Amino acid sequence: MSPAPHPFDEAIRLEPLADGEFAGRSSPAYWNMVGPYGGITAAQLLQALMSRPERLGDPVSLTVNFAGPVAEGPFRIRTELMRSNRSTQHWSATLLQGDGDDSVAAIAMAVFGTRRPVWSHTEARPPAIAPYEALPRLSRPEAPAFTRRYDLRFERSPFESISTDSRSACWIADHPPRPLDFPALASACDVFFPRIFLRRGRLVPVGTVSLNIYFHADAAALAEQGSAPMLGAALCHVYQSGYFDQHGELWGRGERLLATTHQIVWYRE
Amino acid sequence: MSPAPHPFDEAIRLEPLADGEFAGRSSPAYWNMVGPYGGITAAQLLQALMSRPERLGDPVSLTVNFAGPVAEGPFRIRTELMRSNRSTQHWSATLLQGDGDDSVAAIAMAVFGTRRPVWSHTEARPPAIAPYEALPRLSRPEAPAFTRRYDLRFERSPFESISTDSRSACWIADHPPRPLDFPALASACDVFFPRIFLRRGRLVPVGTVSLNIYFHADAAALAEQGSAPMLGAALCHVYQSGYFDQHGELWGRGERLLATTHQIVWYRE
Repeated sequence: MSPAPHPFDEAIRLEPLADGEFAGRSSPAYWNMVGPYGGITAAQLLQALMSRPERLGDPVSLTVNFAGPVAEGPFRIRTELMRSNRSTQHWSATLLQGDGDDSVAAIAMAVFGTRRPVWSHTEARPPAIAPYEALPRLSRPEAPAFTRRYDLRFERSPFESISTDSRSACWIADHPPRPLDFPALASACDVFFPRIFLRRGRLVPVGTVSLNIYFHADAAALAEQGSAPMLGAALCHVYQSGYFDQHGELWGRGERLLATTHQIVWYRE
Repeated sequence: MSPAPHPFDEAIRLEPLADGEFAGRSSPAYWNMVGPYGGITAAQLLQALMSRPERLGDPVSLTVNFAGPVAEGPFRIRTELMRSNRSTQHWSATLLQGDGDDSVAAIAMAVFGTRRPVWSHTEARPPAIAPYEALPRLSRPEAPAFTRRYDLRFERSPFESISTDSRSACWIADHPPRPLDFPALASACDVFFPRIFLRRGRLVPVGTVSLNIYFHADAAALAEQGSAPMLGAALCHVYQSGYFDQHGELWGRGERLLATTHQIVWYRE
């Protein structure tokens, strides 16, 4: 008897159809308040692109615009190679559900590329935080399902009190542990709690409008990371008239910056 | 006799064709080393979307992936409304030049939305720099044409010496002055010199692969800014195996954060 698949592998499982289309299902295991967790949608879109046999190299950037709600049940992902160059490829992907004018639930663009052993340097510094082993795993039974798919560890609960700024650091790992790959890294880029929750000291209605990810690691660096927890840092620059931005960093073993990520989030007060 | 149009208006002038397509020309006035300045391409794509009569509200985010070189001469921009919601719209745009498999030069996604007078707060702080009037305009006759379309003022020339970090601040204005609008703001988001030039103290081959812009101001805020110079700040997190990231902020009058921007840039060493 083979062991049950990891919930993440279950969530990103896609069936190839004709003409670069894939069939999948929205994931109850990664459910957020009113639809799937945005990170899992990003992972599904990336997984579709990674599954195309023409794919060249590793992901360099991924942008996902969340156009409308994703409902429970089946969806299709349409992928298109927009242009192939010598060392980079430009892809687009569209997540469709149902028929009609509002069938587009998410649109994405990605760049794939080959990396080269040239002069490299990390200028940013990882945040200071107590060791993973010294901190308790965040436990909020009332939180949406997707939070239970992660092992998140903070020095102080991000919901404890109103923060004077939105900076926070935490440990991030899949739960149960799972060796890191690009879809999992993409998903983890959306795991930072909306900065406005920290600033207002309460939950307010929010929705990510656009999620942007830059990958700074190749497949070999992700293999080296394995299932070790990553260190995350996040902050906000501005909350303005119904939209705020959020910037995140995901650090791996050996102070290696694996990804930087940005999102713009709709909010209501 | 009417005065000559501003070079920026000349550059973003588009002729509407059928079915959401527009005809334009690459701009010699905004030429970079081997093709048009990326900011002007972003502005042209945004201008096409702004010209669609169905457009709702103001731009919230714009992502442009630079798929291939743009040559001198005519191009077409194909725009598509992917989904329209109550207060947001999701658009895509493709810049095409010539025929055949390599006709896609750039692809873009944008979110437009209406803003609401809700709780707002700017958490980031503008960089410290001497007043605009106290600094000389950067003058480098050997630099590409697009640099002469801007009035850029630094406390110390970014090319003077090798920096120990990539942070820099500068004043940014269109030259000659021009009242700020969304295409001009998008264009200015690409004006920060590639951080690797600062770190290496010399020019190295680079090319922006993906440019991401979050707009934090509505049309009224841009009108208030008028043609006053903006204050810019930029930094890099990591240079890794042929790609580095770059983060920028554009500040307006009264410490108003007008836009934040990110890009991932290919480099060779």
